[in-house]
Amino acid sequence: MNRARLETLLTEVADGTLTPAGALDRLTHFPTEDLDFARLDHHRALRQGQPEVVFAAGKPVDQTVTICQRLAASHGTFLCTRTSEEQARALRENFPSLEWNAPARTAWLPPSERAVALPGELLVVTAGTSDLPVSEEVVAVAAAMGANVTRLTDVGVAGIHRLLAASEQLRRADVVVVVAGMEGALPSVVGGLVAAPVIAVPTSIGYGASFGGLAALLGMLNSCAAGVTVVNIDNGFGAAMAAVRLLARLAESKR
Amino acid sequence: MNRARLETLLTEVADGTLTPAGALDRLTHFPTEDLDFARLDHHRALRQGQPEVVFAAGKPVDQTVTICQRLAASHGTFLCTRTSEEQARALRENFPSLEWNAPARTAWLPPSERAVALPGELLVVTAGTSDLPVSEEVVAVAAAMGANVTRLTDVGVAGIHRLLAASEQLRRADVVVVVAGMEGALPSVVGGLVAAPVIAVPTSIGYGASFGGLAALLGMLNSCAAGVTVVNIDNGFGAAMAAVRLLARLAESKR
Amino acid sequence: MNRARLETLLTEVADGTLTPAGALDRLTHFPTEDLDFARLDHHRALRQGQPEVVFAAGKPVDQTVTICQRLAASHGTFLCTRTSEEQARALRENFPSLEWNAPARTAWLPPSERAVALPGELLVVTAGTSDLPVSEEVVAVAAAMGANVTRLTDVGVAGIHRLLAASEQLRRADVVVVVAGMEGALPSVVGGLVAAPVIAVPTSIGYGASFGGLAALLGMLNSCAAGVTVVNIDNGFGAAMAAVRLLARLAESKR
Amino acid sequence: MNRARLETLLTEVADGTLTPAGALDRLTHFPTEDLDFARLDHHRALRQGQPEVVFAAGKPVDQTVTICQRLAASHGTFLCTRTSEEQARALRENFPSLEWNAPARTAWLPPSERAVALPGELLVVTAGTSDLPVSEEVVAVAAAMGANVTRLTDVGVAGIHRLLAASEQLRRADVVVVVAGMEGALPSVVGGLVAAPVIAVPTSIGYGASFGGLAALLGMLNSCAAGVTVVNIDNGFGAAMAAVRLLARLAESKR
Amino acid sequence: MNRARLETLLTEVADGTLTPAGALDRLTHFPTEDLDFARLDHHRALRQGQPEVVFAAGKPVDQTVTICQRLAASHGTFLCTRTSEEQARALRENFPSLEWNAPARTAWLPPSERAVALPGELLVVTAGTSDLPVSEEVVAVAAAMGANVTRLTDVGVAGIHRLLAASEQLRRADVVVVVAGMEGALPSVVGGLVAAPVIAVPTSIGYGASFGGLAALLGMLNSCAAGVTVVNIDNGFGAAMAAVRLLARLAESKR
Amino acid sequence: MNRARLETLLTEVADGTLTPAGALDRLTHFPTEDLDFARLDHHRALRQGQPEVVFAAGKPVDQTVTICQRLAASHGTFLCTRTSEEQARALRENFPSLEWNAPARTAWLPPSERAVALPGELLVVTAGTSDLPVSEEVVAVAAAMGANVTRLTDVGVAGIHRLLAASEQLRRADVVVVVAGMEGALPSVVGGLVAAPVIAVPTSIGYGASFGGLAALLGMLNSCAAGVTVVNIDNGFGAAMAAVRLLARLAESKR
Amino acid sequence: MNRARLETLLTEVADGTLTPAGALDRLTHFPTEDLDFARLDHHRALRQGQPEVVFAAGKPVDQTVTICQRLAASHGTFLCTRTSEEQARALRENFPSLEWNAPARTAWLPPSERAVALPGELLVVTAGTSDLPVSEEVVAVAAAMGANVTRLTDVGVAGIHRLLAASEQLRRADVVVVVAGMEGALPSVVGGLVAAPVIAVPTSIGYGASFGGLAALLGMLNSCAAGVTVVNIDNGFGAAMAAVRLLARLAESKR
Amino acid sequence: MNRARLETLLTEVADGTLTPAGALDRLTHFPTEDLDFARLDHHRALRQGQPEVVFAAGKPVDQTVTICQRLAASHGTFLCTRTSEEQARALRENFPSLEWNAPARTAWLPPSERAVALPGELLVVTAGTSDLPVSEEVVAVAAAMGANVTRLTDVGVAGIHRLLAASEQLRRADVVVVVAGMEGALPSVVGGLVAAPVIAVPTSIGYGASFGGLAALLGMLNSCAAGVTVVNIDNGFGAAMAAVRLLARLAESKR
Repeated sequence: MNRARLETLLTEVADGTLTPAGALDRLTHFPTEDLDFARLDHHRALRQGQPEVVFAAGKPVDQTVTICQRLAASHGTFLCTRTSEEQARALRENFPSLEWNAPARTAWLPPSERAVALPGELLVVTAGTSDLPVSEEVVAVAAAMGANVTRLTDVGVAGIHRLLAASEQLRRADVVVVVAGMEGALPSVVGGLVAAPVIAVPTSIGYGASFGGLAALLGMLNSCAAGVTVVNIDNGFGAAMAAVRLLARLAESKR
Repeated sequence: MNRARLETLLTEVADGTLTPAGALDRLTHFPTEDLDFARLDHHRALRQGQPEVVFAAGKPVDQTVTICQRLAASHGTFLCTRTSEEQARALRENFPSLEWNAPARTAWLPPSERAVALPGELLVVTAGTSDLPVSEEVVAVAAAMGANVTRLTDVGVAGIHRLLAASEQLRRADVVVVVAGMEGALPSVVGGLVAAPVIAVPTSIGYGASFGGLAALLGMLNSCAAGVTVVNIDNGFGAAMAAVRLLARLAESKR
Repeated sequence: MNRARLETLLTEVADGTLTPAGALDRLTHFPTEDLDFARLDHHRALRQGQPEVVFAAGKPVDQTVTICQRLAASHGTFLCTRTSEEQARALRENFPSLEWNAPARTAWLPPSERAVALPGELLVVTAGTSDLPVSEEVVAVAAAMGANVTRLTDVGVAGIHRLLAASEQLRRADVVVVVAGMEGALPSVVGGLVAAPVIAVPTSIGYGASFGGLAALLGMLNSCAAGVTVVNIDNGFGAAMAAVRLLARLAESKR
Repeated sequence: MNRARLETLLTEVADGTLTPAGALDRLTHFPTEDLDFARLDHHRALRQGQPEVVFAAGKPVDQTVTICQRLAASHGTFLCTRTSEEQARALRENFPSLEWNAPARTAWLPPSERAVALPGELLVVTAGTSDLPVSEEVVAVAAAMGANVTRLTDVGVAGIHRLLAASEQLRRADVVVVVAGMEGALPSVVGGLVAAPVIAVPTSIGYGASFGGLAALLGMLNSCAAGVTVVNIDNGFGAAMAAVRLLARLAESKR
Repeated sequence: MNRARLETLLTEVADGTLTPAGALDRLTHFPTEDLDFARLDHHRALRQGQPEVVFAAGKPVDQTVTICQRLAASHGTFLCTRTSEEQARALRENFPSLEWNAPARTAWLPPSERAVALPGELLVVTAGTSDLPVSEEVVAVAAAMGANVTRLTDVGVAGIHRLLAASEQLRRADVVVVVAGMEGALPSVVGGLVAAPVIAVPTSIGYGASFGGLAALLGMLNSCAAGVTVVNIDNGFGAAMAAVRLLARLAESKR
Repeated sequence: MNRARLETLLTEVADGTLTPAGALDRLTHFPTEDLDFARLDHHRALRQGQPEVVFAAGKPVDQTVTICQRLAASHGTFLCTRTSEEQARALRENFPSLEWNAPARTAWLPPSERAVALPGELLVVTAGTSDLPVSEEVVAVAAAMGANVTRLTDVGVAGIHRLLAASEQLRRADVVVVVAGMEGALPSVVGGLVAAPVIAVPTSIGYGASFGGLAALLGMLNSCAAGVTVVNIDNGFGAAMAAVRLLARLAESKR
Repeated sequence: MNRARLETLLTEVADGTLTPAGALDRLTHFPTEDLDFARLDHHRALRQGQPEVVFAAGKPVDQTVTICQRLAASHGTFLCTRTSEEQARALRENFPSLEWNAPARTAWLPPSERAVALPGELLVVTAGTSDLPVSEEVVAVAAAMGANVTRLTDVGVAGIHRLLAASEQLRRADVVVVVAGMEGALPSVVGGLVAAPVIAVPTSIGYGASFGGLAALLGMLNSCAAGVTVVNIDNGFGAAMAAVRLLARLAESKR
Repeated sequence: MNRARLETLLTEVADGTLTPAGALDRLTHFPTEDLDFARLDHHRALRQGQPEVVFAAGKPVDQTVTICQRLAASHGTFLCTRTSEEQARALRENFPSLEWNAPARTAWLPPSERAVALPGELLVVTAGTSDLPVSEEVVAVAAAMGANVTRLTDVGVAGIHRLLAASEQLRRADVVVVVAGMEGALPSVVGGLVAAPVIAVPTSIGYGASFGGLAALLGMLNSCAAGVTVVNIDNGFGAAMAAVRLLARLAESKR
């Protein structure tokens, strides 16, 4: 039951062609259709200035292009994650202004006019150069969502001085995403240095017993720094969205 | 928004004190309250002749008694699973007609008049005597739900002749629950012998590398008999409820 | 000992050329050969209107064709699962009426005359579009077995309203197969909405810590909705067969 | 090198008894002692209106009391998590105004005057009643830290209508902590309903294959709702601290 | 269909009261009842001189005594594994000649006259003194089954000379059971020293990352000595039975 | 210290140029060199009539050929396991009489005259056709070692009658190797049917939650049939060698 | 063949009653008995100034006392690890000079005169106070072995400044043992600060997903600091012995 | 704050343009910048005679060359691990004196003049020929670092005599690295034979249940030889660096 149909029903009640009891009956038998509104409302809220996100991994090239064309038509923008080079090439042919971030594997069509910018500052801290594809996904997704993003790279805990030298930058951030593989210790150290929210992203980088990122994941879940939260292995997209949720709340609370 | 309030709203639309647009606005801003109805309906359907189920494990004795008293007051019956002896004793003091199945750890207050009996026959097959606490939970829960239950016990695959000798009984059943620990092989053999639905319950019985039932669980999930389904380790309650869903559907389809 | 030989033996007893004691001796020394009959009977029962199922994954193309030719010769139909494109092409050359379902990877030779149709309705609910290959396998296998199948797709729990909008369709089904990857939460929500049997299929779709579908599998085994059963990861075939067992029982109980 | 010694050094440079080169040499050979200051500063910042947190599990009663006496002497407040009843009794004898939250196992000495209250609202959503000890820890710790906390309890996904009925309350929150055991599906549904940050806490509640909360943990890490973050199993303390980090940032950004 | 009933049937065919066709029909509809014979035969074979084995763990004392009384009555002997001290005491009251092996947790009633002794020699090699309860179970069970058992103890690989000093004893054995915890390396070394069958038993002895014997189990399964076989963790009973199967075959082949 | 040097030493003692005390000193300082002898003896014993075994997986083609040429030169025979087609082709060019078993991936150069044949009969039982590569490795290796091998194939437990029909063949065997993937239940059923030693080989065949054969491995380790032993996943070579150890012992005991 | 028998043999060769060939024969047929010497020699070397180590966990009190009495009689000293309070009390009754380290659970009888002290300095770094039982075991065992041990405690990575403040102490150490639970990140930071060998000990301290120390173990194995080595979970004894091996080598190299 | 800026600050204090209080304030607000010095000092120490190490796996060829050119320019040497053949070829074109160790996958540019050689002897013991790539990485890295390395190869525990024959070589070594796959038992035996530090490297060599080296890793962590330490699976680089830390300490202690 969409808005139009609900309007019709209520008009019928108003003009007497449907009794309240009859309307009650129809409403109670289609309890979920009303939720169409919520869905639409919700979508509208989500859409404000922010692109829809397509998880492109494994999607056929033509299907990816079709989805993006539909998104571009209705919203004027789109964002793809885990985009292959082949998909990116096909998208660029259709959308010359496409921004293709190769290491992050994101393909973004920036909207013609940028509606909303998120307040505050997101700092993306990366342990090693091998973790960069994941942290670049954080950067690309968050930037597409309107966040103000800065980077702090190659500050793994085995050379702790490099991180400490950036303590000023760390303390300034409103939310810190920390990307690390191997033992995943960096979020613990960062969590001890800053008071802001820290979102940890384990990566699948490591020798044998990293077990595809399990070691870093467990390390981050067991962080001795209180209040560090964790997302899935290599899930830069998820970390960016978590940061965006937070920055959006800052915006909300400022109004 | 409950039924009463929705009725009021519709009456207000009918008598003109509320415009359709105003009603539309109120309805769309409380999209979920309509669902109260579904919940109530749903509960009513569930309640017909069937007891509510209390997972008693770890609940304080007095809290368990209170919950059961409330259920008995409104429905005239209740069923507790994973009930300790101490909980059972306290319940019996309050409900002399309580049926306490010690190995199954169920405590059931039978309703004064039994409303609905499920059609068909549920056969509970058990591999070894150590698995009996779990299979007795299947029996007790399903029986309380109105199912007609029979047992086939101690027919583990290492003495396959015992199972084959019961092939007539196996073929008669409308649904078969197979309870087994150790390597969990019995559901595969049963699944090959019968055409009826087979629900497998792994138990935590076994030496070291059973890893608390993991071996049996994986065995059952990998059954070479097509169409065997599985519930959680030691989850006799879940298997009984799955069987009841199925028998209830038989009842439905007979109408 | 096949039927012919048993007939001979009994005739010999009848005409006195073999004493009852001698027959007893021979029968007890070949205890399993009698089972030949059961096997044949069983096969005949299974075969009625339903194709044999070939697990084609990894089989050489020529071997796959040979097996299917033998099945087609004796039963007039066959069904292959996990069929590669190359296998499918070779089969089509031999069987022009072959139905090749590319996403489901099934290849089915429909029988010239359909003997038995299963009663009731199987609803296949899919969480995300990435799960479609698995749910299409459910659909293709169940349909080949004679089931009446409908689909409900892209109703993952992160946008719960989409599922609720289909509650009517959900309640109508006689058995629901729910296919989901990632956290595998959809069967729990569906299990709470319907009273019919719910069979959950975890898929291997997900980021790093899905561990090839383990996360979804464990989620479904631990479903808080009572009576949800589970099959192996990506095992659309198994779920279809479990549903067919159930629908066949409905047919049985209607007679 | 503490502040006093650094002051002496600088004075010596100022009055010429130490050359800049000599001071440079001494400073570069004790690079970390300067950090004493940062530590003190940092501690001061952390301490503002917020109690120190003692992880009491396994600590001898007398040692626990001694630590708390020292904290009370210097800060006028303390907070213990995972406190046993015996520890709590001993603490109350020493601190009559102690607030002992039995299910949460927290023991808190409220400060005589509350310095800082955090802005915004933290909503703690709990799937089942068995998860309450963990969610009560969230509530107790966050409240002690100055957060404004509300609860939404027993809204597991198997009866999704209960959650939807509270959508207004969900949307109002500035940060949502979702506590769930078994399949851990609730954060996915909540994450789809709200735009605010969602912190998921898996609990160790469940049958065999929950493997002590592993099923819920994996489920939450694989959430299909973008931007949900996760803490360790049963780690109500960690979730509260993550929420406090966020609310503190809201406070920061409002200045 | 037991022997008596089959005899009746055949007699009826012989005297013409049942036609061969009728008999054929009845036989083919009860295919499994014939297997009664096999079962009886099988049992007789198993029973020759060897006690039945009762897995006593978790069985109530009275139930354990009852089972053993029944076994003693029909076979004149019994063997219990994983027997508690309380069970053993109760058994001794009933059977004064009971042999109670405390570390092995076996309780054995020796038959009044020993019928069959197995040929050959079983050598049980134990890595450390902590592994003795498991190796003693091997010794007690195999001895009760009629095997000739010798021991070689405390010859862990970290002091390899102790093992090499016993090479003569090792080479003499017809089958070697090797019991080891921790890294489970001993079977590999033994397997390289002897040509006889080697059965490895991992024990749950070890520090944290032995994970209850998993380390030893995996080590033994990956043994670089060709042809070493493995039983479950702490499963001394299983290893003894495997050795007995082998020694019995030696006996068979000598006839 | 090799034989020559030990001879020299003893001669020196005999002719008085070295005192017993001096010889004692030298001998005790080179304790392991004596073992050179044992090694030679041991090798000689192992070599009698049996080929050396080369694990060819991953070895470069030329290196594989070189090793085999050396073995052929000294022993007149060799056996390679896990041989690639490319390796096999290169070997055949050098050894025209090479026997290349493609599914088993073994390449065997039969000795010109066969010295020793093992007594008894090894039966290799296979659950499904997908398990054949592993069971063929058992057959090929055991046959090369001189064993008399027979096969029983496609007797998975979901169609138990096929196995029971072969009970005569099962009972005749001196040792049974059972190869099965998926839930690995077949060894339990076989172990219950025969008194001979049973060696179980799990294969990596199966859907998702077989986890590369882990499900079958755990199933076999937890077999409810007493005395079944297990080798590593897909380790047909190991099972063959375990069977050969046993058959060799039969030979030994017959002398 | 012990020393006495070897002496006899050599004397026989010397006086001509045994030919060199005959002696050669006897020596080569008892290859391992010579190793008796090596064992004794080896033991003597090990014993110099260092106590034997008894793993007391699970040993009966009387057996523990007996073993220690035998060690005290022959060596004048002993060391027990994992000693229970009851065992310690019984030992003290027999050995009034026993040193009982309660948190470390070690019981040590110091030798009357200390023969050898190891050179260099062992620094034991501990992350949190909950890890102290493990690090105290390192200290007690290493001290009993003659090592010079110092401690650096409560320097977890969440407050990195505490560790950096001790950089002088860290750089001075010849070998560093780092004990940490939870995410086990401390060895990575320490490994980046010092050039000396770093031995990491994971502890079982942590919330749910530490899985009994697995998280810390994996973290340490994946350390991004090159050249950090790891011992088993909670294995303070092993870390101490690894450090002692190293310090003993320093002593060796100084000679 | 770098050295230049600190020098300026101190000069300002010395000439009175900055008060000690002002300098104190600035120093305490930039606590970490001082650490620049430590970092530089540290790097200088590390650089003495030892090449920087590049983990080349996955790096683009041109990027690898650029990094190495920069290292060669400043240090005159570099070392790459996990170098592909393509990377090695490109490096050799730029650096004709490059030493490319194909099995070890290391590419090393030796410095024109070798500054420092480490004292002592590193012995690398390898279980099987399949483990050689890992042990060659140990050799290549340690040699590049200035260590004196010898090899002992193909001495797996299934033929223990081969290892014992090399006991002299084993006892001579100052540090032993033991490389083994499968059950990983070799370090236990070696650890029992030598008093020197033993570093164990598990490799991923093995059949199915080695689980990519997990079996060997767990085996080594549970070694019954006291004081054996472990590095990550296949981590030859880490073992070499651990040995180098130790040999460098020997050098230190000799001064």
